Formats: sequence, structure tokens, C-alpha cells
Amino acid sequence: MDFNAEKVLCDVTKWIKDFFEKNGKGCNAVIGISGGKDSSVAAALCVRALGKDRVIGVLMPNGVQSDIDVARELVDFLGIRSYEINIKDGYDALMGTIVSSVGEISDQTRINLAPRIRMSVLYAVSQSNNGRVVNTCNLSEDYVGYSTRYGDAAGDFSPLARLTVAEVVALGLEAGLPEHIVKKVPSDGLCGKTDEDNLGFTYDMLDRYIRTGVCEDSEKKARIDHLNKINKFKLELMPVFPYEG
Amino acid sequence: MDFNAEKVLCDVTKWIKDFFEKNGKGCNAVIGISGGKDSSVAAALCVRALGKDRVIGVLMPNGVQSDIDVARELVDFLGIRSYEINIKDGYDALMGTIVSSVGEISDQTRINLAPRIRMSVLYAVSQSNNGRVVNTCNLSEDYVGYSTRYGDAAGDFSPLARLTVAEVVALGLEAGLPEHIVKKVPSDGLCGKTDEDNLGFTYDMLDRYIRTGVCEDSEKKARIDHLNKINKFKLELMPVFPYEG
Repeated sequence: MDFNAEKVLCDVTKWIKDFFEKNGKGCNAVIGISGGKDSSVAAALCVRALGKDRVIGVLMPNGVQSDIDVARELVDFLGIRSYEINIKDGYDALMGTIVSSVGEISDQTRINLAPRIRMSVLYAVSQSNNGRVVNTCNLSEDYVGYSTRYGDAAGDFSPLARLTVAEVVALGLEAGLPEHIVKKVPSDGLCGKTDEDNLGFTYDMLDRYIRTGVCEDSEKKARIDHLNKINKFKLELMPVFPYEG
Repeated sequence: MDFNAEKVLCDVTKWIKDFFEKNGKGCNAVIGISGGKDSSVAAALCVRALGKDRVIGVLMPNGVQSDIDVARELVDFLGIRSYEINIKDGYDALMGTIVSSVGEISDQTRINLAPRIRMSVLYAVSQSNNGRVVNTCNLSEDYVGYSTRYGDAAGDFSPLARLTVAEVVALGLEAGLPEHIVKKVPSDGLCGKTDEDNLGFTYDMLDRYIRTGVCEDSEKKARIDHLNKINKFKLELMPVFPYEG
């Protein structure tokens, strides 16, 4: 991998500084801290760009979250202000009213409601703290649509969306984050499966395909291409009826 | 106003049909019905394009909604399936946990949480009903940023986003909707004020400015220009750090 972590760390830090100069002078970066590497690295970048007093971490477990200790460790490590807002009561109340009205509910519905509620909470925190919300999606996830539209795919600016998983890891290590946080196996924390179980291919394979166009396993290549194609709309603005007046 | 309602009605109906052909063959249009003209007109257009069996209205009061009867009348008039999902329990539960963690909360936070929860509910209904979510913003609102990002500004397709308020009204009448629904005074239903109270100018004035560039009142023109400028970001994708690999 031809990735200059030192240079990218410098560039992305400057880019975040510039974003705030232009789009929120003196504002705070508000970021959902999941305990995974993406939010950890994005938070570390914001601390470098803005100083730790201008970064606010928001931990949003849905009931019991098995890796919440990693999220807590991260905010302690960075020395940033943080809030812990458990979404379970809100999630249960909403799901209850939805189910009692709609009846049968798909698994996808259950899975995607939580990230959308987290987005709502994150913006609530942001709007009461002079904030700008950090999007923490990376290129590998975005490439195959592994995100919830208007949920974790939302945000006001996105520092990692053009970096593969491997590049985000390299950036996190360069930024001085603990290895056990940066190299933690990615999982959605929802069904006990890792991301790679859910996707059906490894991030190594996906990253290599994105950067070089090469994937020896033709079945997995076809799956990546398919996911990329059907999920492209998530990265675009919605279609609008084009009346010109 | 040089607006050919008959032609636009035909064009937008075809456009909605085409959207579903390409992006969800056989799927249902899922739309939040507020009792206001935008959701009423958008729902009527979807019924024309897809037939009433493929349109699902979702009424989402937050506790007691004073004009809920208009929303109910509309779904009855169109003969579409509908769900009534009161978001109050979910809203109160989430707001409670947010306040107990964050402390002081801004008015904007309270106002914007509801549309974001409604978006979450709408997508839950959509994902359990083979749906595509209809965005109901119009051009006049979008022009001055009168919407909640990732709330009512969300959706999968937007039939009205290039039509002014006056044009949406004309389209609704052309589509045969009752006049008292289409010409209902727009209000956010939150603070007892009309939209025009909140904005500080009339939609007539705004629509004319958008379509002709003329606004005699220089103070109001300056306010429109200012709102347009500071809210442009809502209609765009968020900025992304532009690493190219």
C-alpha cells in the first residue's frame, strides 16, 4: 500500500481546520463514539485540528453495549468532553408504537432504526452545543453501501470518506491512538457478527479491489460490484423532478 | 404567473412513474401526511402515478395535533392506506435522556428533534412495506432553508422541490384536491405561528422573487438573500476530505 500516513494526517487536519473556518468559526466538533476505529480516528483528527476543548464525544448505547468500555477509554485517552446518552428508552418507545400500528416489522427496520435515532440525538447535542456533526464513514464501507442512509451516513463533514479501512488504521496509528482500539475487529454491535461476516468478503480484499481494481476471487468481485451498484444512491442527492420555471 | 399546471401535472406524474420503474419496480410510495398542502399534493401525485394501492400515508402527531383531522380527511379523500403513529412517547423518552445528560437545551433542538424522529419512523414504515420515501419540500421552503436537515428534508425522491408554494397550490387544485386543504395556511404546528410569521416575509413575495428576481422591499430582499446563503449547504452533499488514493 502506497499510503503516506504522515502527509495525509497533516492534510486532513488542515482540511478540518479549514472546514470550521469557513462553516463554523469557533464551533465544536460533535461526534458519536462507538468504540470502533472510525469514530476513534475521526475524533483524534478533530482534536488535532481544533484542540480537545472543541471536540465533544457522544456515546449512545442501545441498552447494554458490550464494547462501551472501549468508547469510554477513547474519550479518556483524548481528554475530550463526552456525554453518554442511552437510546434504549426512546428506541423501545418508538419501536413499540411502530409495531402496534404497522404490525410485522422487517429485520432491516430494527437494525436501521437505531442509527437514525443516534443521528437525531447527535444533532440534538450539536444544536445545543454550537456544534458541527462529524460523519465517520470510510471509503470501504461507503463503496459497498455499509451504512444507514440518514443514520450514520449523515453528518456535516466527512474526514474519512475517501480512505479505505487499511488507510484509516494507518492514520489512527500515525495519530498515536492505541493499537487495540485502532485494530479492533469491526462489528455493527447488533447481531454478534463482524462486518466481514455480514459482507461476505474481507476488508483486505475490498480495499485492494478499490485501490488496484484487482480481485482474484471472481465470485466475491461480483458481490462487491453488485453491492456498489445497488448502494450508489446512498452517496448521492435524491432525484428531484426537474422543473425549471 | 406563467405556470401550466396541466402540463406540469402530466410531467411530474410521468417522472414519478419513471423513478419507480428505475429505482423500485413495484415498490410503494411512503409519505408523511401532515395535514399541510405539500404532503397532500405529493400524495395525490403519487396516487396518479402509481395508483392508490401503492401509496401509504403516515400520520405522525407528537401528542395532540390540532389539524390531524385534515390529515385524516386527506387519506380518506385519496383512499390510500394509512398508519397513525404518535411519536410523543419516543420523543419524550429521547428528550428526557438528552436533557438529563446534556442539561440546557436550545429551542432549535426541541423544534428539530421531532422531524428527525418522524424521518426515522417513516423509514421504518418504508423498510417494512417495500417502500420509497417521498420528500415533500417545495422550492420556496428550500430556497430559504425552511426545513430540518436529515428530518423533513430527507427522502428518496422529491417531486415538489423545484416548484414554488404558489405552483404547488396550482398543481394541487389541478389534481382535484379540495381547496380548503390546498389553500390551508402553512404552519409548522409547533409554536402557533404561521410559516410566514416565522420567516418574516410572505410566500407571495418569496415566490415572485424566486421566479422574477424582483423584490421591492429591500429589507425583506436582504433577509431572503441572507437565508438563502446560510442555508445552501442543506441542499448539498456534505464536504468530504478529498484524498484520491
